[in-house]
Amino acid sequence: MIRIAIVGMGLIGTSLGMALRAGTNVSDALGQIQVIGYDVDKANTKEARGRLGIDVVADSLKQALEGTHLVVLAVPAQTMPGLFRELAPLLAEGAVVTDVCSTKAQIAAWADEILPKSNPFVGGHPMAGRDASGPKAATPELFKGSVYCLCPGLTTPPQAIALCEAVVDRIGAKTYFIEPVEHDAYVAGISHMPFVLAAGLVNMTASASSWREMSALAATGFRDTTRLASGDVIMHRDIVMTNRIALDRWLTDTITQLQSFQEAVVKGDEAAITDFFSQAKTARATWLEQKPGMRPGEADYEDTGMDLVQRPSLFGRMGGKKS
Amino acid sequence: MIRIAIVGMGLIGTSLGMALRAGTNVSDALGQIQVIGYDVDKANTKEARGRLGIDVVADSLKQALEGTHLVVLAVPAQTMPGLFRELAPLLAEGAVVTDVCSTKAQIAAWADEILPKSNPFVGGHPMAGRDASGPKAATPELFKGSVYCLCPGLTTPPQAIALCEAVVDRIGAKTYFIEPVEHDAYVAGISHMPFVLAAGLVNMTASASSWREMSALAATGFRDTTRLASGDVIMHRDIVMTNRIALDRWLTDTITQLQSFQEAVVKGDEAAITDFFSQAKTARATWLEQKPGMRPGEADYEDTGMDLVQRPSLFGRMGGKKS
Repeated sequence: MIRIAIVGMGLIGTSLGMALRAGTNVSDALGQIQVIGYDVDKANTKEARGRLGIDVVADSLKQALEGTHLVVLAVPAQTMPGLFRELAPLLAEGAVVTDVCSTKAQIAAWADEILPKSNPFVGGHPMAGRDASGPKAATPELFKGSVYCLCPGLTTPPQAIALCEAVVDRIGAKTYFIEPVEHDAYVAGISHMPFVLAAGLVNMTASASSWREMSALAATGFRDTTRLASGDVIMHRDIVMTNRIALDRWLTDTITQLQSFQEAVVKGDEAAITDFFSQAKTARATWLEQKPGMRPGEADYEDTGMDLVQRPSLFGRMGGKKS
Repeated sequence: MIRIAIVGMGLIGTSLGMALRAGTNVSDALGQIQVIGYDVDKANTKEARGRLGIDVVADSLKQALEGTHLVVLAVPAQTMPGLFRELAPLLAEGAVVTDVCSTKAQIAAWADEILPKSNPFVGGHPMAGRDASGPKAATPELFKGSVYCLCPGLTTPPQAIALCEAVVDRIGAKTYFIEPVEHDAYVAGISHMPFVLAAGLVNMTASASSWREMSALAATGFRDTTRLASGDVIMHRDIVMTNRIALDRWLTDTITQLQSFQEAVVKGDEAAITDFFSQAKTARATWLEQKPGMRPGEADYEDTGMDLVQRPSLFGRMGGKKS
């Protein structure tokens, strides 16, 4: 039986526990498991336990880590170095450590610096979420059909990678192997800029002197475009703080693009304005076509000719043996 | 019986016809009506008729306007001046003209310049829509509970305003009286900037050299933030072309705000980054609280102390008599 400790029973930690436990007796690569839950806030572990996301509530980090094969850290990005330091002396021999943060390069650097060499670290990032946060918003369906990035290092033992891949498989997600710096550049564009722009749009309109009257006219378009502005503040702050270089580049691109659009507006350049909207409509339609149910399937990342980075069938190639 | 001609059987025109006809025998201020539909594309009137959005299909603009009390123009904004010129000699005596465009000042200026003085113009803007366009996407529920802006001029006869208000009432929307220039400035912020930012985000990410790999990681956050980028290109172009001054101002504000956020990112100014996200989260939560079902009710626009601009109960004050 594989012992899996989840540290941090928020939305992602609790949803992960629920999704893992929902299939506890299935005969996949992971086999039988036991989920140990720990959170500095006892109310969170209580809620997670009530939602069937935990088999055993741990009262301390030490207790959570005793004899544990896999430790999943589900805490904000900037909490990670401190947590690594706490974990380091407590980890069972050979225990694998993974996380669920939205940025990967900085986390990998901290792991490399702080964790014992005998404890492999495999960075993880489930591409799934909700506006609502905390264990009360958790659902075992959160990861179904979604992409789950794994960022092992060049020297990470295959068994450690296989264990994480088995977890991804159990919760119904699709493993997507990617190098950490590349991951951070990509998600800055398709995941972090969206919440920056959503928050920016709310701040800009809500701080206008006419907001009271304007807000009465704001409808579903405003609601949907700004949805991500209701996400967790600490999570967003930590993502930005640990992905500054990639965000800086995308912010420059965004500003340059808006300046060029503004120039077309001021000039009344009808052709440029038409192109701006028709290119976006076409590109989004193409993207949606490739995403059944808005979530990518195998077809999206197989055969991309990027063997070093993307190895979705690595576990399959290893014969699917249990780890 | 009131004869209402709808010119342009796209999403809005067809939905309006369906919503009006769904309650044809109700004893509200509007009473019994007949809906005449016209579109340069016969396939659209056929589709609209099949969806029960039209009583009578008109083969020409002339036929549509014969003995008609109210003409609703549901065409893109830049088509309006040409259409006004075609309408002018054909309008029945005293017939009221309204439109459904997302910008109001330019349309009002064209109406003032082109339409006969004996035909009152009341600009209209239903704050409701869908990504999909055309009559196939039409639904009689589109306007239920939404805000419907009416922009009468200072000399518009009360009966003309009352007729438009009765239409808004019949389709289940709430009338919101507003001055055209003010309308355009407000909707530029809460309605037009959202689709500009949505299209901009798609263009920026989709034109990146790494888009193929990035797109596989884009999930529901990207989908929702960019939803408006799938809207009708001609409609978006015409909105921008007829609302250039207001959009120019909001674009400057957006760029300034992103530059200031970028500065905080480059510096690693954690406090400024936290403020950026917490202010947005709070403002959006407050906005949502005030919007049961994401749509404003009476409470949102009554008692604002802006009698000249906002007169939601004007029709009520007139005793609710049929026009």
